[in-house]
Amino acid sequence: MIEYRNLRVALLGAGNVGAQVASMLLEHGTELAERAGAGLELVGIAVRDPRAKRHAELPSELFTTDAEQLIAGADIVIELMGGLEPARSHILHALNSGADVITGNKALLATHGAELFETAEQVGAQLYYEAAVAGAIPIIRPLRESLAGDHITRIMGIVNGTTNFILDRMSRLGETQEQALAVATELGYAEADPTADVDGFDAAQKAAILAGLAFHTNVPLESVYREGIRGITLEQVESAARAGHVLKLLAICERIEAADGSEGVSARVYPALIPDSHPLAAVHGAKNAVFIEADAAGDLMFYGAGAGGRETASAVLGDVVSAARRHVIGGPGIAESHGATVTVLPIDQIVTRYSVRLRVNDRPGVLATVATVFAEHGVSVETVEQTVAHPDAELGDVLADAVPGESGSTATLVIGTHRAAEAALAATVTALAANDAVRAVDSVLRVEGI
Amino acid sequence: MIEYRNLRVALLGAGNVGAQVASMLLEHGTELAERAGAGLELVGIAVRDPRAKRHAELPSELFTTDAEQLIAGADIVIELMGGLEPARSHILHALNSGADVITGNKALLATHGAELFETAEQVGAQLYYEAAVAGAIPIIRPLRESLAGDHITRIMGIVNGTTNFILDRMSRLGETQEQALAVATELGYAEADPTADVDGFDAAQKAAILAGLAFHTNVPLESVYREGIRGITLEQVESAARAGHVLKLLAICERIEAADGSEGVSARVYPALIPDSHPLAAVHGAKNAVFIEADAAGDLMFYGAGAGGRETASAVLGDVVSAARRHVIGGPGIAESHGATVTVLPIDQIVTRYSVRLRVNDRPGVLATVATVFAEHGVSVETVEQTVAHPDAELGDVLADAVPGESGSTATLVIGTHRAAEAALAATVTALAANDAVRAVDSVLRVEGI
Repeated sequence: MIEYRNLRVALLGAGNVGAQVASMLLEHGTELAERAGAGLELVGIAVRDPRAKRHAELPSELFTTDAEQLIAGADIVIELMGGLEPARSHILHALNSGADVITGNKALLATHGAELFETAEQVGAQLYYEAAVAGAIPIIRPLRESLAGDHITRIMGIVNGTTNFILDRMSRLGETQEQALAVATELGYAEADPTADVDGFDAAQKAAILAGLAFHTNVPLESVYREGIRGITLEQVESAARAGHVLKLLAICERIEAADGSEGVSARVYPALIPDSHPLAAVHGAKNAVFIEADAAGDLMFYGAGAGGRETASAVLGDVVSAARRHVIGGPGIAESHGATVTVLPIDQIVTRYSVRLRVNDRPGVLATVATVFAEHGVSVETVEQTVAHPDAELGDVLADAVPGESGSTATLVIGTHRAAEAALAATVTALAANDAVRAVDSVLRVEGI
Repeated sequence: MIEYRNLRVALLGAGNVGAQVASMLLEHGTELAERAGAGLELVGIAVRDPRAKRHAELPSELFTTDAEQLIAGADIVIELMGGLEPARSHILHALNSGADVITGNKALLATHGAELFETAEQVGAQLYYEAAVAGAIPIIRPLRESLAGDHITRIMGIVNGTTNFILDRMSRLGETQEQALAVATELGYAEADPTADVDGFDAAQKAAILAGLAFHTNVPLESVYREGIRGITLEQVESAARAGHVLKLLAICERIEAADGSEGVSARVYPALIPDSHPLAAVHGAKNAVFIEADAAGDLMFYGAGAGGRETASAVLGDVVSAARRHVIGGPGIAESHGATVTVLPIDQIVTRYSVRLRVNDRPGVLATVATVFAEHGVSVETVEQTVAHPDAELGDVLADAVPGESGSTATLVIGTHRAAEAALAATVTALAANDAVRAVDSVLRVEGI
């Protein structure tokens, strides 16, 4: 029997993930010790409310409300309490006491990441956060280590399981967003207040973390452009399917060139169309996936469960083993370089493809008018599809200028563009909305992954 | 300007991957130094034939034929020469000199891995091999580190790009294997002698490496069961498609229970049917993917380029950066535990599903006879499909025993089983072949991923 040095592990928070981590630490102690090269002794679980000892399977003597005292005596601190405070203060305390810290707190990292990483570097401690992005999927470590010799140009991630579940049901079962959300809530995939998921706040936090890591810089949460899926209709999803596309809420982190030619990065979240054949299109249900484009490695994708107590606990324990190995070895660990001075560019500087849906007067010359508006703003049209407003209307009616529609009748045009600058597209849309031939701009969606 | 300590990097081999690694080390030196916390000085490139200085873009003074001398002065040795010897001796020399070693040599690891890992552990050096399995896809590091706190139960990998390219063309373009292989050869995806790929030798080496790592044991190459795709016909691929399946060459590593109830593992390579909806079914062309099932993390998949000079070089450089960080930090690195004493069980101990295609006499009672043979061997039938031998034959002919076929005419039955032991299935097939009602057992394929 090998005698291992014992490392003292403190757990902050006993929610879904925390309780799983505690159980697994207690149950698989011997196995973990072998992997880590050190014993992992769970010395306490800090909870805010002492009545929170609801986990009958966990020894009640482990629970405490005195987080600070627990931290003071720990080699490794696992923060799974969520929220900004007191999580931030606890982590700073732990790092300053020389403990390594594992956190799954994406809100905190997206908001105070710069401060936390700086503190860790200054004191020579390490901050691990595999569980903060895409749950069980090992994505932080590959980005930080495996691709350390490469140059990442773009990340596209399905990083919110709730919205993927909703969009997938709309796409595959023809449900409306309300119906799909109701199912998600019933199954526990969505919170009672789904704002954080549906409006893209959760995905934006993950985009900030991923962009910072991939581009070795600090990407403030407020610089992440964000659109959620709230406005997405079944009609849009079905129209996408007819065009060979699928609608996904994507977190995109990209190196781009600013208008003045300088290098910048973009971090943004929005519902986007991707081709059916793209690997991300096959990510169904509440699964997550992160697609990475790197100069040398080419395209990579990491797929798996984005949430769930046991799944996320697996990522936390992987970090615990890494932290323990580092403690046994000693030394400063991997310093994350977030020091690159790269400008985070606003959304109007990005360049991508667009799918614009317009309701137009169904009369001769309309397509020419619309096409002229695009051309005047330097946006090149790739495809035009007429979605039939009344069943006997045909694309030919508009295209050929041959059969005038009745006065007052409308047609719907779906226009796919080549790559264009967001600013140019926005100006095009403004001009379209002001044009007499156009009744309404129904929808503007970005097209990614082509 | 930060002054970094310089680490001396020796490269053995200047083939496709080696030349890329050398270029990237020379071109991205500053960036790599930042990530690694140390300068990376390429001190030499050992080649067997001095005339091999064919890479005009690499400084000719770097080339040498004296590998031993180069190794003696290096902090980090990158072995990309391939083959067993002198690669093995060089790596042992490097480890014993205190250098960390990076290798992409799957044949060597699958054959002499135990010796190399043991040596590394004894001398406190580290052996990195991300490039040896699935090219650019970070799979070794996630298995070794991210999932260190979890319990892996199964790995299914598409780890050979050539055979995936061939099967994908057969499936999507209706080409025969010969036609698809010809295209693969023309495009450089297949070697002039495709044996290593087509007969599964390459995949078996990767299975041995993955199984050893996932199950913390040593899996000798000769214990890996291996069937290639040579016998796979377009008819089988098309029959699979009709049943909602796709045929892939899979490397499978699995924890299984031996007949005596003891724990064992299985490592095997064979063409298998997987459902269309499985994430591995969407892996097209020459791409690779590794699907992992873990107790807590659930299902994970890692997808990307399995080969290619630049792609594989990315994986090598990630390892170089890791090795450099370790050199700067000092300490023993991550000891890979390959010491678990788990029995590698032979193929007849596995349990899976099967799809058996039989040519039978098209006459009343045949199905009952066939079903009895399955039942007698304890193999439970889940589905029966009659593939029409002559267009007017119907499943009803056989099933209902109502409309006897003409004497001498045959029908083809495709029988899908529930999970069954390989030994029981093998006995069933032997009995079927000996049965008067059965003209021939045309094909036996395993069904995975359900």
